[in-house]
Amino acid sequence: MDDPGQVADAVLDGNPRAAARLISWAEDRDDRAWRALERIHPETGSAEIQGVTGPPGSGKSTLVDKLVDSYREDEATVGVIAVDPSSPFTGGAVLADRIRMSRRSTDPDVFVRSMGSRGKLGGLAPAIHDAVRILDAMGKDVVVIETMGVGQGEVDIVRTADTVALVAVPGLGDDIQTIKAGIMEIADVFAVNKADLDGVQQTVAELESHLRLAFEDADDDAWRPPIVETIAKNGDGVDELVAAYEGHREHLETTGELDERRRERAEHEIVSLMKERVTERVLGSEEGTRRFEGFVEDVMGRKLTPRSAAGELLER
Amino acid sequence: MDDPGQVADAVLDGNPRAAARLISWAEDRDDRAWRALERIHPETGSAEIQGVTGPPGSGKSTLVDKLVDSYREDEATVGVIAVDPSSPFTGGAVLADRIRMSRRSTDPDVFVRSMGSRGKLGGLAPAIHDAVRILDAMGKDVVVIETMGVGQGEVDIVRTADTVALVAVPGLGDDIQTIKAGIMEIADVFAVNKADLDGVQQTVAELESHLRLAFEDADDDAWRPPIVETIAKNGDGVDELVAAYEGHREHLETTGELDERRRERAEHEIVSLMKERVTERVLGSEEGTRRFEGFVEDVMGRKLTPRSAAGELLER
Repeated sequence: MDDPGQVADAVLDGNPRAAARLISWAEDRDDRAWRALERIHPETGSAEIQGVTGPPGSGKSTLVDKLVDSYREDEATVGVIAVDPSSPFTGGAVLADRIRMSRRSTDPDVFVRSMGSRGKLGGLAPAIHDAVRILDAMGKDVVVIETMGVGQGEVDIVRTADTVALVAVPGLGDDIQTIKAGIMEIADVFAVNKADLDGVQQTVAELESHLRLAFEDADDDAWRPPIVETIAKNGDGVDELVAAYEGHREHLETTGELDERRRERAEHEIVSLMKERVTERVLGSEEGTRRFEGFVEDVMGRKLTPRSAAGELLER
Repeated sequence: MDDPGQVADAVLDGNPRAAARLISWAEDRDDRAWRALERIHPETGSAEIQGVTGPPGSGKSTLVDKLVDSYREDEATVGVIAVDPSSPFTGGAVLADRIRMSRRSTDPDVFVRSMGSRGKLGGLAPAIHDAVRILDAMGKDVVVIETMGVGQGEVDIVRTADTVALVAVPGLGDDIQTIKAGIMEIADVFAVNKADLDGVQQTVAELESHLRLAFEDADDDAWRPPIVETIAKNGDGVDELVAAYEGHREHLETTGELDERRRERAEHEIVSLMKERVTERVLGSEEGTRRFEGFVEDVMGRKLTPRSAAGELLER
């Protein structure tokens, strides 16, 4: 299966091996990806895209696992993309995902894939956009993007989702401080996981006081993120979390915010891809690399500022 | 002081108000910045650039404060750039920095500046490169870049430095797990701060076992990051930390690695600025924005993939 057209058709038929192949091409920014993605693009847009983020140790993976169980009970098909921007591992090489994948491998309606920061020129985010599109084209009803930590990189990634859940956990030091302002704001739903631990009431209270402040001057029809207490390991609160997701989904659809979010995402993605393609064009050949190295010398010799060098490289 | 040439000259004279002005222009990506930066660029390259990163709550700011004291005792002049990628605050608006600034304001040989993620088109990193260059041109012997957390964004920022210290702290849960692989690798020096807390030996042992593994197959002349225990609040270990910085500096200079690092940095910066300038050119006019919005419509209507839209926008 090396022909992009064939791979695209197999993806549209829901074939997981074809999907895995196409995601790998997208990660490698392999030319074959573009032809296949052109083909599947018209067939995308119907999956619900959900993001789950939170600090390491907050139990995100277990929670996602339980979410998948819940969706499967409702006979929805699910794709999971587990992203670790700091990891060079990809394609299910992370141990935890291997375990999850093998457990899921008997269920053809669940597709799990882990993605790390492979490759050099392009970043991780463009490949994740493509992966979401591929799982959507496969016919998955829900696509869950799970990140391994909370930082700017993760925020950019999780913005690929329509609805974002931020997982907090009691007793992780000054938890709410750790989850900084810029990150709190991406949450559409808060899950306070490990809700059987001491300190859960304090974490919930801190989140509530944060929300009170943040929504002081908000419109009446603004979405106020619900706070759901969960105990992922035994499934407590997972149904409530699913209900919170559904509530937000309804809000997105009735207010027209879904279109707005997807528009912003398209804008953001096109800009990223412009940047990627410029880098490809300037550095994608031996001659280009040689010219580039010449400019680097000039910058190091302080004959040219980096900005002027960039300008001249763009003139070609 | 609105003339770029005048501002540049004042910066070269060590004037802190001119430096603050020029950093603001760089943050705003104001055209005046480029003319001033052209002027100062030949006069840069002599400052030692040090990065300090670590999780929130690890006491980085106090440690940096004590580092500054130590440099001042040796009569070195110092610039500090405190970076919080998740904060919209800049220019010393963060409370902690205001306090630090006022404490330092009696010392003309220390310049403190905080930078957040202001602006939209450009990222934070290019402005930080410029800020380092400005403090260097002012004549600061040492420039310290301090980040507020540890994530991919922070890693990119701290790479602006010649030497990076990663601050760990005992008892922050599974600390070493939290500081992921990709982040451990940027450390040239480890500072285990709050070394009076329980669990310090365990944290040091974990770092040591990480280093043993990481340096198993390393060359004999490779730099092996020293682990320094510090108690920032009373200054314990700060001299040892300074010695570790100096050791690494010597290593960089004797092995030629300093040039190598600065070359990589120049490469990285030129590529970032190419991306920034392309975005400016495509989106910098009303007409450009209208064309862009048309392509966004086509992508949302699934007539065009985002990648094709990006390609067509680049053709102009």
